[in-house]
Amino acid sequence: MKMILPIFVLSLLFSSSYAAVQDFCVGDLSAPEGPAGYSCKKPAKVTVDDFVFSGLGAAGNTSNIIKAAVTPAFSAQFPGVNGLGVSVARLDLAPGGVVPMHTHPGGSEVLIVVQGSICAGFISSANAVYFKPLKKGDIMVFPQGLLHFQINAGGGPALAFVSFSSPSPGLQILDYALFGNNLPSELVEKTTFLDDAQVKKLKGVLGGTG
Amino acid sequence: MKMILPIFVLSLLFSSSYAAVQDFCVGDLSAPEGPAGYSCKKPAKVTVDDFVFSGLGAAGNTSNIIKAAVTPAFSAQFPGVNGLGVSVARLDLAPGGVVPMHTHPGGSEVLIVVQGSICAGFISSANAVYFKPLKKGDIMVFPQGLLHFQINAGGGPALAFVSFSSPSPGLQILDYALFGNNLPSELVEKTTFLDDAQVKKLKGVLGGTG
Amino acid sequence: MKMILPIFVLSLLFSSSYAAVQDFCVGDLSAPEGPAGYSCKKPAKVTVDDFVFSGLGAAGNTSNIIKAAVTPAFSAQFPGVNGLGVSVARLDLAPGGVVPMHTHPGGSEVLIVVQGSICAGFISSANAVYFKPLKKGDIMVFPQGLLHFQINAGGGPALAFVSFSSPSPGLQILDYALFGNNLPSELVEKTTFLDDAQVKKLKGVLGGTG
Amino acid sequence: MKMILPIFVLSLLFSSSYAAVQDFCVGDLSAPEGPAGYSCKKPAKVTVDDFVFSGLGAAGNTSNIIKAAVTPAFSAQFPGVNGLGVSVARLDLAPGGVVPMHTHPGGSEVLIVVQGSICAGFISSANAVYFKPLKKGDIMVFPQGLLHFQINAGGGPALAFVSFSSPSPGLQILDYALFGNNLPSELVEKTTFLDDAQVKKLKGVLGGTG
Amino acid sequence: MKMILPIFVLSLLFSSSYAAVQDFCVGDLSAPEGPAGYSCKKPAKVTVDDFVFSGLGAAGNTSNIIKAAVTPAFSAQFPGVNGLGVSVARLDLAPGGVVPMHTHPGGSEVLIVVQGSICAGFISSANAVYFKPLKKGDIMVFPQGLLHFQINAGGGPALAFVSFSSPSPGLQILDYALFGNNLPSELVEKTTFLDDAQVKKLKGVLGGTG
Amino acid sequence: MKMILPIFVLSLLFSSSYAAVQDFCVGDLSAPEGPAGYSCKKPAKVTVDDFVFSGLGAAGNTSNIIKAAVTPAFSAQFPGVNGLGVSVARLDLAPGGVVPMHTHPGGSEVLIVVQGSICAGFISSANAVYFKPLKKGDIMVFPQGLLHFQINAGGGPALAFVSFSSPSPGLQILDYALFGNNLPSELVEKTTFLDDAQVKKLKGVLGGTG
Repeated sequence: MKMILPIFVLSLLFSSSYAAVQDFCVGDLSAPEGPAGYSCKKPAKVTVDDFVFSGLGAAGNTSNIIKAAVTPAFSAQFPGVNGLGVSVARLDLAPGGVVPMHTHPGGSEVLIVVQGSICAGFISSANAVYFKPLKKGDIMVFPQGLLHFQINAGGGPALAFVSFSSPSPGLQILDYALFGNNLPSELVEKTTFLDDAQVKKLKGVLGGTG
Repeated sequence: MKMILPIFVLSLLFSSSYAAVQDFCVGDLSAPEGPAGYSCKKPAKVTVDDFVFSGLGAAGNTSNIIKAAVTPAFSAQFPGVNGLGVSVARLDLAPGGVVPMHTHPGGSEVLIVVQGSICAGFISSANAVYFKPLKKGDIMVFPQGLLHFQINAGGGPALAFVSFSSPSPGLQILDYALFGNNLPSELVEKTTFLDDAQVKKLKGVLGGTG
Repeated sequence: MKMILPIFVLSLLFSSSYAAVQDFCVGDLSAPEGPAGYSCKKPAKVTVDDFVFSGLGAAGNTSNIIKAAVTPAFSAQFPGVNGLGVSVARLDLAPGGVVPMHTHPGGSEVLIVVQGSICAGFISSANAVYFKPLKKGDIMVFPQGLLHFQINAGGGPALAFVSFSSPSPGLQILDYALFGNNLPSELVEKTTFLDDAQVKKLKGVLGGTG
Repeated sequence: MKMILPIFVLSLLFSSSYAAVQDFCVGDLSAPEGPAGYSCKKPAKVTVDDFVFSGLGAAGNTSNIIKAAVTPAFSAQFPGVNGLGVSVARLDLAPGGVVPMHTHPGGSEVLIVVQGSICAGFISSANAVYFKPLKKGDIMVFPQGLLHFQINAGGGPALAFVSFSSPSPGLQILDYALFGNNLPSELVEKTTFLDDAQVKKLKGVLGGTG
Repeated sequence: MKMILPIFVLSLLFSSSYAAVQDFCVGDLSAPEGPAGYSCKKPAKVTVDDFVFSGLGAAGNTSNIIKAAVTPAFSAQFPGVNGLGVSVARLDLAPGGVVPMHTHPGGSEVLIVVQGSICAGFISSANAVYFKPLKKGDIMVFPQGLLHFQINAGGGPALAFVSFSSPSPGLQILDYALFGNNLPSELVEKTTFLDDAQVKKLKGVLGGTG
Repeated sequence: MKMILPIFVLSLLFSSSYAAVQDFCVGDLSAPEGPAGYSCKKPAKVTVDDFVFSGLGAAGNTSNIIKAAVTPAFSAQFPGVNGLGVSVARLDLAPGGVVPMHTHPGGSEVLIVVQGSICAGFISSANAVYFKPLKKGDIMVFPQGLLHFQINAGGGPALAFVSFSSPSPGLQILDYALFGNNLPSELVEKTTFLDDAQVKKLKGVLGGTG
């Protein structure tokens, strides 16, 4: 017997669910945001370009004092990952470059070394230190919320891609948090035990006030 | 001693929380949707009818080539389950009927056979096959995202209700995904190793183009 | 060109992941349990029978004073749903039968009326009451943790299947909690404002002490 | 070598992420609510006052028949906790005061006794009773959705703070749910086995109708 | 008609679920731990004392240089909260006391001032600073993973209780992480831009090596 | 005033929490597994090598018929990511190589093209097709559970790294699921509408039986 399955069959069968089923929620950055992420762009307006991001193709500008650049593809830059529990970023480290001590309050990170070598590490709540030089192809995981860092450990430029367990993992750079805003020096000193001169010096460098 | 608990007592006691407490979030299909589901209908406008759905009372139309019908009560059809982590659907299988190979990307499923007998099965990531004929009253679970199917295994009509671990589990029917859209035949063939003739035949049946 | 895809190809390709990938976690009731559920049975020992449960095929015994029976297929009875976020139960109501006021602390519920008619309802945190007679094929959702009930609303037996958003939703029957254990009558009375005679009468009926 | 890290460096480095990163989602009570909570207030309008709440500083009014007062700081009262998985409340118990049997459908609770002594307890799904007099400094946990109560166990006033695992744990007071609304007496009686006189007496006290 | 509800009724009705239903998972610290927490103590061995913790009744020892003490009741100290999504701690601040800059990688925190006054604050990923003096009864929320601090802002001792959105929120004290372990001074300096003298001074104070 | 912060201070302050705090849960592959992942290796035995994986440094063997190789660093291969919500894999595509149609039942994926060009695409539940050629540096996201594929679109080898929103996303390759196991041909045909000859041909190629 010949099988004939006319097009209308499955259409009829499942028609009511098609209009509304959503497997994704491309972020609409102009609509209200909630605890779980951005509102969804209407499915009918979604195209393949919402799922593709080309912003990580070019090296970030490392012509700066730390000789490093981080280029994020979080939900704010790449709304296609909104609600999907994952995001990525590109990390460029010129020779001598360093990504200073920082945390991601909202997600764990896996770093993949694509070029060069990187010394990376983190410190646990139990105050144990884990760090190691990584070569091309090595990966390292940094658990959510813990202080960690990456340093170019070779003579040439280093490139890495990093993945996060959240579309919006956040980023808190220690020096920036302590010395790059209007948190009064007195409070910084009382809560970090750093010397006044040290605090004021770095506030000067990073533009902090107070 | 006589107990007197005037009405105003508990009203006073907890009054501030009453207006705002929400145990549920009946979906407002006309408002923005987010990664966690639809926006909530205002509690003051919610009635018992938001929590009741009568759309599963009648058999789906199985007068089609696969002799089967699936009637969903997902959050898109039954907004009362929005945000509550569960939904259901009705499955009608005429004699010879089959629900073709498919997945639910967003939830696990439990099938309950209410009438007739059904041969159901799924394939795991480890490529193990699990299938069995089920009789009235039997239940079977299909883990999230795995290919599975249901076939009428008896001489008469079969009826089942299925439950999902999500208010919006999604549904991806394999044949429909491969042959019922504009995915070019060349790409289908390269990624499935199916013969060109086979692909084109099913594209014809299911209305696929390209 | 003829396509030949020898069996060893994909084996080689993905071999390392096969042994360990787990799409499910069939509960091993004899191993340690954790906050997320039971430990998993070794995949190699899992068979299709772990995913099928026949315990809901027969009506529960309603020859009791409430003329009702609930037969659960939670992870404790049906370990196949462990970790999968869903479970089901069977509800039999003889004429005049009632499932007394109760809550499921761990999950939301959807009830599907398969036979007869049932008056079902729940009370929200905002103290709104939602109840309605349901006929065959109607479904109703009861949000997690709220007091709800089901009463046979017809002249004949009623049958329903209920789905939960958790493999282990729990069940707290109000009367059983208040009158069926060793909670001292004095504490019951102080915390419910029920009369001493009423409390002692129901303690007598339900076997409570104290 | 002198280290100079000009302000523009890190600005350049991470500038694209700053505008959009959100570590919190202060609830905008006037915007749509979703299953995960309220929409977020725009970060630029958030001030420290959004994260501070002074409403728990004063004792609640215990001049009522139950001699108790609960003052919540849930997301509806304290939008700063929206999306953050935690909230608190203040509990005042005058001598003889009692927080009647109730549940929180949406969260577990930890009670901290700050003044006086409190007899607190809960009943599990397995119908086990756990209760104990608590003294100043003692804490007790009440698992999500289970019936529990607190009674002033000393001669003076008692004060406690309670924490929840949700910004909006909900609150269902048993007596209020049974006797303080329009749930018909007949349904209350059928589903609780309480006597008609008892039900009507408490309906009278609590203002219930039907 | 007289209502008689013999004890065996509900026992029969729900008997199969009783043995296995678990509303809680008191941590068994000697058994394997998983990503979701400790393994559960057998329910039959659980007593009310598993849900009560008296360790927060006494003030912590503030006779130290920071004049502060934190006493946690996390799942490691208070296994009753294991798996329940909430924990608490006690914070004592002698005059001049300070809880230095720190984060909780695994949870958000709400602080309740019970005695005295406390200046508390946090810094967001967007580098905004939020701090304010809090008086008795005030509460403040600190979103997950962000740097925050508490300082005694009054002339007398201050006491606060803090709640967390996790049974095991973790704790990473900035100074301890940077200067109290074996992270080489060179790495500290490269990743924080602190001067060598400053780093070595604090390493000396906090016992760090390298 | 000179600040002296002896080492014992913070030790005393937080000592009780240090032994037990866990920010991570390195998988112990020999211990019981639960729904949330593997049991945790004892923290005292964890070293930096648990957080580093070198298995992605070398290209996979693409000397096979599909000219492709996937090398996973899921929790089964890289136990450091256990419980952390993220994992990665390496994808090598020789000229003409293809990763056939497949799904990840347990996670969403982001692909980063590191070398060459790749045509990648997926099909949604609503049966929309999204595909696009990607060049070096482009990224694309594939929502959880949906059928997707990757094809080398250039003349030379292509290399990509892929990230997942789960430490154990699973992998179900369509051809392998349909033709590489003991699922009877009759069931394959009934549930896919493929011709018997087509099914048997591919079963022959992929080693399927039945």
